[in-house]
Amino acid sequence: MSSSDIFIGEIIGTAVLILLGAGVVAAVVLKRSKAQGAGWVAIAFGWGFAVMTAVYISSPMSGAHLNPAVTLAIAIKSGDWSNFPLYIAGQLIGAMLGAFLAWLAYYGQFKAHLSDPEVVPPPLDEGLVDKKAAPKAGPVLGIFSTGPEIRNVWQNLVTEIIGTAVLVLAILTIGLNESGKGLGPLAGLYVAFVVAAIGFSLGGPTGYAINPARDLGPRIVHALLPMRNKGGSDWGYAWIPVVGPLIGSALAAGIYQIAFA
Amino acid sequence: MSSSDIFIGEIIGTAVLILLGAGVVAAVVLKRSKAQGAGWVAIAFGWGFAVMTAVYISSPMSGAHLNPAVTLAIAIKSGDWSNFPLYIAGQLIGAMLGAFLAWLAYYGQFKAHLSDPEVVPPPLDEGLVDKKAAPKAGPVLGIFSTGPEIRNVWQNLVTEIIGTAVLVLAILTIGLNESGKGLGPLAGLYVAFVVAAIGFSLGGPTGYAINPARDLGPRIVHALLPMRNKGGSDWGYAWIPVVGPLIGSALAAGIYQIAFA
Amino acid sequence: MSSSDIFIGEIIGTAVLILLGAGVVAAVVLKRSKAQGAGWVAIAFGWGFAVMTAVYISSPMSGAHLNPAVTLAIAIKSGDWSNFPLYIAGQLIGAMLGAFLAWLAYYGQFKAHLSDPEVVPPPLDEGLVDKKAAPKAGPVLGIFSTGPEIRNVWQNLVTEIIGTAVLVLAILTIGLNESGKGLGPLAGLYVAFVVAAIGFSLGGPTGYAINPARDLGPRIVHALLPMRNKGGSDWGYAWIPVVGPLIGSALAAGIYQIAFA
Amino acid sequence: MSSSDIFIGEIIGTAVLILLGAGVVAAVVLKRSKAQGAGWVAIAFGWGFAVMTAVYISSPMSGAHLNPAVTLAIAIKSGDWSNFPLYIAGQLIGAMLGAFLAWLAYYGQFKAHLSDPEVVPPPLDEGLVDKKAAPKAGPVLGIFSTGPEIRNVWQNLVTEIIGTAVLVLAILTIGLNESGKGLGPLAGLYVAFVVAAIGFSLGGPTGYAINPARDLGPRIVHALLPMRNKGGSDWGYAWIPVVGPLIGSALAAGIYQIAFA
Repeated sequence: MSSSDIFIGEIIGTAVLILLGAGVVAAVVLKRSKAQGAGWVAIAFGWGFAVMTAVYISSPMSGAHLNPAVTLAIAIKSGDWSNFPLYIAGQLIGAMLGAFLAWLAYYGQFKAHLSDPEVVPPPLDEGLVDKKAAPKAGPVLGIFSTGPEIRNVWQNLVTEIIGTAVLVLAILTIGLNESGKGLGPLAGLYVAFVVAAIGFSLGGPTGYAINPARDLGPRIVHALLPMRNKGGSDWGYAWIPVVGPLIGSALAAGIYQIAFA
Repeated sequence: MSSSDIFIGEIIGTAVLILLGAGVVAAVVLKRSKAQGAGWVAIAFGWGFAVMTAVYISSPMSGAHLNPAVTLAIAIKSGDWSNFPLYIAGQLIGAMLGAFLAWLAYYGQFKAHLSDPEVVPPPLDEGLVDKKAAPKAGPVLGIFSTGPEIRNVWQNLVTEIIGTAVLVLAILTIGLNESGKGLGPLAGLYVAFVVAAIGFSLGGPTGYAINPARDLGPRIVHALLPMRNKGGSDWGYAWIPVVGPLIGSALAAGIYQIAFA
Repeated sequence: MSSSDIFIGEIIGTAVLILLGAGVVAAVVLKRSKAQGAGWVAIAFGWGFAVMTAVYISSPMSGAHLNPAVTLAIAIKSGDWSNFPLYIAGQLIGAMLGAFLAWLAYYGQFKAHLSDPEVVPPPLDEGLVDKKAAPKAGPVLGIFSTGPEIRNVWQNLVTEIIGTAVLVLAILTIGLNESGKGLGPLAGLYVAFVVAAIGFSLGGPTGYAINPARDLGPRIVHALLPMRNKGGSDWGYAWIPVVGPLIGSALAAGIYQIAFA
Repeated sequence: MSSSDIFIGEIIGTAVLILLGAGVVAAVVLKRSKAQGAGWVAIAFGWGFAVMTAVYISSPMSGAHLNPAVTLAIAIKSGDWSNFPLYIAGQLIGAMLGAFLAWLAYYGQFKAHLSDPEVVPPPLDEGLVDKKAAPKAGPVLGIFSTGPEIRNVWQNLVTEIIGTAVLVLAILTIGLNESGKGLGPLAGLYVAFVVAAIGFSLGGPTGYAINPARDLGPRIVHALLPMRNKGGSDWGYAWIPVVGPLIGSALAAGIYQIAFA
């Protein structure tokens, strides 16, 4: 794979991933969406199929990492770090592009949602509003980035570490199946259901970032987009879905080297 | 593939696609249906499996385009436009046939639904009814064709363009997977889940036509069928789910030629 | 395949099919079931996976017809009717065995459900009860057999014919895929999702028997089982889910012979 | 496969299985989980994908039994009992490890749930509490282990026997498909949907343990973990999800030997 193939493949793949991933949350959450209220089953399958689609599209070009945690684990496993920055850069740019496209696709719904007084009540007395009391996470941030139901640094880190370790261990061991021939064309479908599994099973506490680019890229886009009443981008939490997945990835790579290699 | 194989394959395939696709919306929407209220998860999976079934049935005969947007992208990619009109004609005829069969299968439910005063309230004073105030979209049009939650030409076009671009990019890149051997028999299953992904993620604003024949054929059938209280066929919107998918298809074909070919 | 393999394979396969198929309806419908209220998404996937499990278990022994409509279509296609009665007999016995096993698995739930006054209200005045006014379908018959939401011979027949034609056409064309090599080990998974598709899309009006043995066998078991308050077995409807699927099967076999063979 | 590969493979595989399996119940049940109320569809798919993920991860090392009922059936089929204790030990240790990890991932949710007075009402008068009247199963035991909706030794045993027999028969016959070549890389996906099928169809009465290690390991962890208000571990029921699955497994192995071998 050439450098430009890797770079472009990761941009396109991660853009598709986040377009569909942010899209399903928008579909379920936003007012005036036909899928509003479709619930967690839609979220978990939606993200799983988002990964599948992105994997098959970008796999011929870049190998479809689409996730710095995956790139990290593969670099640890192979010892080859030469394309590491290229992958990360492509993933972050792709994630931002995807979030922007999801916002475009749901432009009217975002506007309707954020102008709804039930969603964003007007301040009774602006003078009393304390800047510190402003909500950290705006009413549509959850479409872009993850956030904890219970805010606790160690608990949130642990959940992201465990979720990512399962994802990375599943990816690293794909090639060992069927006596070393790997899962072949089935691999993308398998990854789809692994991601759905993590969503169903480990998404409850933090919304399963399990991918630093998936969280950071859209959060930057949320901060930049011109949306009235969009609220805060919760930058205080932003490091957890970056650091947690990287630790989980390294952990899984270590388990792989010790137990499977 | 002979001309008659293409024509018949596309008719049968698109008929199965729309029979099952319109069917799942009927199942979820209509009164006196056992699946009433099954929600968006049923819709997204139902349309996905509808595509899968239609693809495997018609693939040996016509290659299973089933969608003018797919036919357009393949013509752009291959430069061969000779069978273009044949595909489109088969798709449109098939879509109309499928919509008619779905109506037959739910004949009693349509009748019960459209005679329910909760669904179709009688006009309090017929004399006051302004023809312009008549609803553009009748109470069962959504079973046949798509429609926007928020009516806005540019927003609706953009959403259809983005959704179709994802679909077409996924289809064009199937053959590149596994070092050029393609996804093989898995391809139909993959397309099923791509369509489910687009439904889950990008269906909220416009109901994801992403296929001109899928929308136009059933809309014509809606206009022709003898249903009491069926209401309008919303012809003012009809061009968007035709033009949007064609633009999205051309866009995806362009991205494919530049980045993947 | 020897005669005894066919007979035993169809018994075991159809028993697994109906055990899991009747099981999912029991799970969703009966009081004191953990899955009560899981809805149509559970029903459609449950029946789909029931077929898949039964297909892979019995396929090596009998080719996994599991459905007189499938056996009929294959006999029409091949012209070989020699094993026809053997298949049908195995399917009917298997369906009865499966219904009995589902009843065993949910024994306590059936008892609790049928002794609940909300489900089976006591007659206010037994003397007034007119035998003709007795409900045709008892409160748990839907777990065993199908029934129409709107009772109309022609409409119900048409719905069953259309649903079965889709199923049979999908099965007959499996072998044509991938240039005649067929879908291979994927076939069972494909059939699972075709059945789920029919459930999602065409199950609303009649509950999609699409299989004479699936409906008749469990109906006989319903009539025989000693359940208090079980109510009628609705024998007046019983011929429709037998005749409809057989017509649909013949229709699909005809379409196959004309268009695909 | 070496002894250490078997042992470590079963520990890792069963840990992933229970982490994701207990995880999805925690996700659906616990307060302050984003997936709370996602229902039985999430549970059935979550457990199915949990099995799939665990199977593909551990398959290259230990063959992915992950279940004493599967190990028993394979030992009966092959006559080779030499690794039987090793498998069981690995499975039990893995199951305990997985339950512990699920608890870690949902630490905050467990705490919030068990301190909610709606979930655990304070005793009005401690003096009146009769030790015998204490609930056998605490409010979060269902996340760790199974329990019956209707407590009846014979009914609960029968349900577990039937469910496990379907699972084991499906696993034993995988290799017979496609003329003895087996399902190949598809096998893990197939098992995922078989487990989902059993969940959808036979999970209603007892919660489908169908795996002694899956139930006993997490029950031990529930008994050991320091959780305030965790309530009882229902040891009186604990033997049923051990004995039932083993009987079901032996039954399926017998059917296999008689009908399929």
